[in-house]
Amino acid sequence: MPQMPRTPAGRGYLAIPGPSVMPEAVLSAMHRPAPNIYAGELPEMMPGIVADLKRVARTDGHVAIYIANGHGVWEAALSNVIAPGDTVLVPATGHFGHGWGGMARALGAEAEVIDFGKSSAMDVGRVAEALAADTARRIKAVLAVHVDTSSSALSDISALRAAMDEVGHPALLMADCIASLGCDVFEMDAWGVDVMVAGCQKGLMVPPGMGFVFFNDKAAARRAEMPRVSNYWDWTPRAQPDDFWQYWNGTAPTHHVYGLRAALDMIHGEGIEAVWARHERLARAIWAACDAWSTEGALRMNMAEPKHRSTAVTALRLDPPRATELREWTETHLGLTLGIGLGMAERTDPSWHGYFRLGHMGHVNGHMIMGLLGGIEAGMAALKIPYGAGALAAAAGIIGAVSP
Amino acid sequence: MPQMPRTPAGRGYLAIPGPSVMPEAVLSAMHRPAPNIYAGELPEMMPGIVADLKRVARTDGHVAIYIANGHGVWEAALSNVIAPGDTVLVPATGHFGHGWGGMARALGAEAEVIDFGKSSAMDVGRVAEALAADTARRIKAVLAVHVDTSSSALSDISALRAAMDEVGHPALLMADCIASLGCDVFEMDAWGVDVMVAGCQKGLMVPPGMGFVFFNDKAAARRAEMPRVSNYWDWTPRAQPDDFWQYWNGTAPTHHVYGLRAALDMIHGEGIEAVWARHERLARAIWAACDAWSTEGALRMNMAEPKHRSTAVTALRLDPPRATELREWTETHLGLTLGIGLGMAERTDPSWHGYFRLGHMGHVNGHMIMGLLGGIEAGMAALKIPYGAGALAAAAGIIGAVSP
Amino acid sequence: MPQMPRTPAGRGYLAIPGPSVMPEAVLSAMHRPAPNIYAGELPEMMPGIVADLKRVARTDGHVAIYIANGHGVWEAALSNVIAPGDTVLVPATGHFGHGWGGMARALGAEAEVIDFGKSSAMDVGRVAEALAADTARRIKAVLAVHVDTSSSALSDISALRAAMDEVGHPALLMADCIASLGCDVFEMDAWGVDVMVAGCQKGLMVPPGMGFVFFNDKAAARRAEMPRVSNYWDWTPRAQPDDFWQYWNGTAPTHHVYGLRAALDMIHGEGIEAVWARHERLARAIWAACDAWSTEGALRMNMAEPKHRSTAVTALRLDPPRATELREWTETHLGLTLGIGLGMAERTDPSWHGYFRLGHMGHVNGHMIMGLLGGIEAGMAALKIPYGAGALAAAAGIIGAVSP
Amino acid sequence: MPQMPRTPAGRGYLAIPGPSVMPEAVLSAMHRPAPNIYAGELPEMMPGIVADLKRVARTDGHVAIYIANGHGVWEAALSNVIAPGDTVLVPATGHFGHGWGGMARALGAEAEVIDFGKSSAMDVGRVAEALAADTARRIKAVLAVHVDTSSSALSDISALRAAMDEVGHPALLMADCIASLGCDVFEMDAWGVDVMVAGCQKGLMVPPGMGFVFFNDKAAARRAEMPRVSNYWDWTPRAQPDDFWQYWNGTAPTHHVYGLRAALDMIHGEGIEAVWARHERLARAIWAACDAWSTEGALRMNMAEPKHRSTAVTALRLDPPRATELREWTETHLGLTLGIGLGMAERTDPSWHGYFRLGHMGHVNGHMIMGLLGGIEAGMAALKIPYGAGALAAAAGIIGAVSP
Repeated sequence: MPQMPRTPAGRGYLAIPGPSVMPEAVLSAMHRPAPNIYAGELPEMMPGIVADLKRVARTDGHVAIYIANGHGVWEAALSNVIAPGDTVLVPATGHFGHGWGGMARALGAEAEVIDFGKSSAMDVGRVAEALAADTARRIKAVLAVHVDTSSSALSDISALRAAMDEVGHPALLMADCIASLGCDVFEMDAWGVDVMVAGCQKGLMVPPGMGFVFFNDKAAARRAEMPRVSNYWDWTPRAQPDDFWQYWNGTAPTHHVYGLRAALDMIHGEGIEAVWARHERLARAIWAACDAWSTEGALRMNMAEPKHRSTAVTALRLDPPRATELREWTETHLGLTLGIGLGMAERTDPSWHGYFRLGHMGHVNGHMIMGLLGGIEAGMAALKIPYGAGALAAAAGIIGAVSP
Repeated sequence: MPQMPRTPAGRGYLAIPGPSVMPEAVLSAMHRPAPNIYAGELPEMMPGIVADLKRVARTDGHVAIYIANGHGVWEAALSNVIAPGDTVLVPATGHFGHGWGGMARALGAEAEVIDFGKSSAMDVGRVAEALAADTARRIKAVLAVHVDTSSSALSDISALRAAMDEVGHPALLMADCIASLGCDVFEMDAWGVDVMVAGCQKGLMVPPGMGFVFFNDKAAARRAEMPRVSNYWDWTPRAQPDDFWQYWNGTAPTHHVYGLRAALDMIHGEGIEAVWARHERLARAIWAACDAWSTEGALRMNMAEPKHRSTAVTALRLDPPRATELREWTETHLGLTLGIGLGMAERTDPSWHGYFRLGHMGHVNGHMIMGLLGGIEAGMAALKIPYGAGALAAAAGIIGAVSP
Repeated sequence: MPQMPRTPAGRGYLAIPGPSVMPEAVLSAMHRPAPNIYAGELPEMMPGIVADLKRVARTDGHVAIYIANGHGVWEAALSNVIAPGDTVLVPATGHFGHGWGGMARALGAEAEVIDFGKSSAMDVGRVAEALAADTARRIKAVLAVHVDTSSSALSDISALRAAMDEVGHPALLMADCIASLGCDVFEMDAWGVDVMVAGCQKGLMVPPGMGFVFFNDKAAARRAEMPRVSNYWDWTPRAQPDDFWQYWNGTAPTHHVYGLRAALDMIHGEGIEAVWARHERLARAIWAACDAWSTEGALRMNMAEPKHRSTAVTALRLDPPRATELREWTETHLGLTLGIGLGMAERTDPSWHGYFRLGHMGHVNGHMIMGLLGGIEAGMAALKIPYGAGALAAAAGIIGAVSP
Repeated sequence: MPQMPRTPAGRGYLAIPGPSVMPEAVLSAMHRPAPNIYAGELPEMMPGIVADLKRVARTDGHVAIYIANGHGVWEAALSNVIAPGDTVLVPATGHFGHGWGGMARALGAEAEVIDFGKSSAMDVGRVAEALAADTARRIKAVLAVHVDTSSSALSDISALRAAMDEVGHPALLMADCIASLGCDVFEMDAWGVDVMVAGCQKGLMVPPGMGFVFFNDKAAARRAEMPRVSNYWDWTPRAQPDDFWQYWNGTAPTHHVYGLRAALDMIHGEGIEAVWARHERLARAIWAACDAWSTEGALRMNMAEPKHRSTAVTALRLDPPRATELREWTETHLGLTLGIGLGMAERTDPSWHGYFRLGHMGHVNGHMIMGLLGGIEAGMAALKIPYGAGALAAAAGIIGAVSP
């Protein structure tokens, strides 16, 4: 591979599964002088932001906002409902369930992991079995990742709830929607999710640095029984503040608040259901292209079944080291950055170079996806990676399959 | 056509033939406080800008910079070398030659137009004939448009020079490179061009508001003989200023200067020959797609011969009103704005809706062009406009046809 | 003087008489992708901009907008109403009247200058005498500079009109409001001004690159009689366009249009009369400080009489080379850039270092002016330049002398 | 008080004690597309950022960076070295010591507070007594606030260390430099500080959203003995990461990293000692003005002794409700926002309206401070608040008291 220039000509395209492409409207909203944090526009903006966040999550419950990334809100959520000595059940469908479980352990909890591997959907029956076996009710929460960003597996959270209900287990259902919120369909209240965590940097289209914990009254009741919750993670004053600073337990992330306001305006201007439909249509275009490419050569989608695939991210396999070569080619020659494989192999393992991922979350549309797919095909052509014909035409057909 | 939302989701893409896509580096460079115009960085920046502009134009001659659009530098250039009563010869290959000739008339000159129509290349033989017939040497300049933005016709300026030389006519060769500079190969000195005009908003990737007149010593000698040149248009002090304000005949366009500096850094960072090669490769991808589409249905490139096509803009034909419908569909559904047809029909004429254009100048690369082409194919699919198969695959193949 | 660092700590303050301090709202409005120039928001924005410009100029007449600086609109205005062989009368109150007269000469006109020196107001009686003496009516226009940016002299345009009317001379009254529009009170229609020119980079708070020619029906009638007006300068299609491109005779300065829109929103949000009152109050604070300083040492305002002083710019004198030393000190130590003296002496003349100017136009308020004055006093203290006491307290008193 | 317009004319000035005035260079650096978080510029930038942060803190120790505000790093620091059941000693010199102590309690520790009131310096003798009395060595850390942002009290951390050493108590010395870092002189290693916390939004001039915990090997050893530290707060992998994501325990705050890079460039471009000297000079100018104002009327600085005053923030008293009226006047009429009093009285207590604060931290210079002081004097004049004469002249004299 020749030396990579830092900035190829033309507009860059960061097609990794987060951070996603930042809208100019968001960046512009953040390019502003520091605002007063004691009075005026900024504090007055908060009730609207809280309401609009809940509309994205489809909940009438509560939301606590944190200056934190996804790992931070993992810990925040756990800190409010899991005490040392508690047990959590983790049905893992990729890399991130293990991570969340690990955070619970570091807080003094037991984490029981059901590992579904790296390319399989969650089998809710097995989760139900584990809960049924827990006659002592040691399990306080099920930590379910809605979309695992590493495998691109989509879990059926509604079915998980139904399975839990059937068993009659009182554990909280906690969902990680970091990769899915604002992309894949998610209905917090209708699906019976008790706690949900998300970040701002994927479907919410804001630079990383802010996270959210949504929770319902059942979870609030659990928090009320906790022996101790740290000040900073305590969600209660954040969700029901008397004063502006309590939203943030201290100084607000002023510029991020303006960015989030702009992003929520975009989402609700389009309509959350339209946002979901857009992600679904674009994902189908990507899958159609991948299906065509897969008819020859080694390219394969990680998740075989469409119903188990996220519409926000697609994990792919290729003969190592072709995936890495492809990523390098598109970045070097086109300014198109694809995502690395994550959690599928150790980085030192040669097979690591056989995985890559596409982010298609947030600020994306049809010409961008055609550019992404076209860039990949150009790269495969350049590198003489075998692939089946008709991929781009198929994708264009799906994007064009809307009523004129 | 349903109501068009103002801002479809995802990144917008303005694929019209100017203004072109503005690089973030240029916009950021312009987002700054006003600088001092009497001392410091801004005045010190000018010699480097002048040198770097000449490198883009491939000339050791002179350049005068104007706060003006393309029409402004048309007039500026003429004002320095054409006096009332003089004659100019205009070999027109589309819309803009007529416009430049009209400006000459408004300055009191005669403009003799050789009209090559809207889809044909310049026949330099006919220009030579007209010059040969001008035994009285009334013709003071030939006004040649290098790339006509309306027809996308590329004229062979070097051949024109050769034809003029063969006839031995002393007229100046004046070239309009507004659409081509920084995109199509252009060699001012090697091709014997005496005066060249350009704008900043196409291949130079700066928001509209600045224009350039390059000239050589022969043209400077002509200017010295002019009975009168207005202060503002006079290129002499602009090209050889004693003080910073003279570059601009007054206040400098401060923020544009910073934007231009950033753009020139990008161009020369890539290398002007690499910039040309990139435009050529991307144009060939577009042509390949159009060729494939044209095998069925009505889509046709306006310029039949590849050697007569610009690599910066492509004019296309479609059954009216399909071109307009297609433009509206891609803008509404994809945020992709295609260019209208220009100068091919009156806007009130139904046939107007049968033309459109693609801009592929400046800040463009392979994934963008694949997005552009993919968006068009999606639109044709959506609107059931017939087209031949294999277009996108062909384009991807050309973009990928570079050494890995 | 020690070596000057490029960027002293803290926010810079460019207090020169143009370009003025650019509002963040204007810069943000300009930091945006290129818009479509054929349809949509940009063309639709124009009627509102035209109306709002006229409200600033207090006219029901016409306005032509140019991509040009102040010199450009000087030439544009002249080109529409002054033919070769015509005569213009220039009552000069500083540097710029001579410049405008020079542009008229370069267009083939005669320019008769009445020079009032560099520190005196216009004596309208002498202008009236010159007009009365012109029994042949050779004088076609009086070119009056409302505020001369070099001397900071404010001319009484209303009185000039009255004097012209009294003489009954048919010459057009043309006013240069480049430094004054949006700062000093100006009433185009009420004062009987026929043609007025302005730029965008001072009271209008937009980066340099755009100019305006306002004109009334009398001036339009004169233009109709002109033997020839160049296409680019012709104000008729610009003021009465059939299509968007005619506003600009070609490509619009897209980003400047957005900046101008933001600036006009600021001006009319505050109210033009409130804008004038603010400039007047801030100018009086500056004058009070200068009066106090002047009780000791050599600092003097260039215009002795308050009624002859602009409220947008203040020209000052100091023992050379103290003015230059002061400017260098405030820039080096405070990031505060004061204006150089202009047109008072040759730059090679040692006395050149005895002049400087303050810009207080556009985006200014009380704390900025106190910072400007405080910075000057700090500099005079540092450099041991003698000055009278009480300056800052006097200025603060005037800024505070508003109803709470 | 009449209705307050949202945006008075001219440049706003947020003179509250954090967030501070954001440099345009920082905001511009943050206005950029999302970068790749797996390779390239962003990860490569980190070692330099870490080194430059340590240079600001004057330490060769370690630093962990958090996506968090000041409260977040309070909790982070405690979480690494204080276990449930431990005791911390809090010598409080205003509002924030109590807050930090409260966070320790919420983590299960005991917090012993020595309250020095709201206007007094820390008496290190009393701290030493408390440590000497702790023969059981229950006290694991002394939580000292270097500058209390509410009272503007500056604590002598070096003297505190000496007192601790004299007693021979093994407690860690933990310092809160949230308000002081990059403003007041601070020498982490030379003064023997074991743990130091800071935020990005004051002296470091970056929008709120990032915090820092610096620690030495002694603190690291303590951490190694902790029974449990949560994953997110654990400073070990953040300070010694194997991979980029570990700096952040997850997704990096991409845009803040670029902003911080720009801010560190500014600080080290000027030189940290020059930065301290600038803050000291500007603070003395403010104090001199306050001293003069205080000769008449009720205005008083909260901290009587200069050596106990921060050079980054000044807390002031005035007859209630004059402080609130003054703040409202400067904001409404000048766009100058002063800080509210904090922690001196309940907001519902009428005396609350007798306190206000000035922030003079980070991106400040002499003309800004003169504008701040001039704005206050104008406000006092407008509101007929009595004040002594000569304040502004005194301040200007101090700002000018530098070698030319």
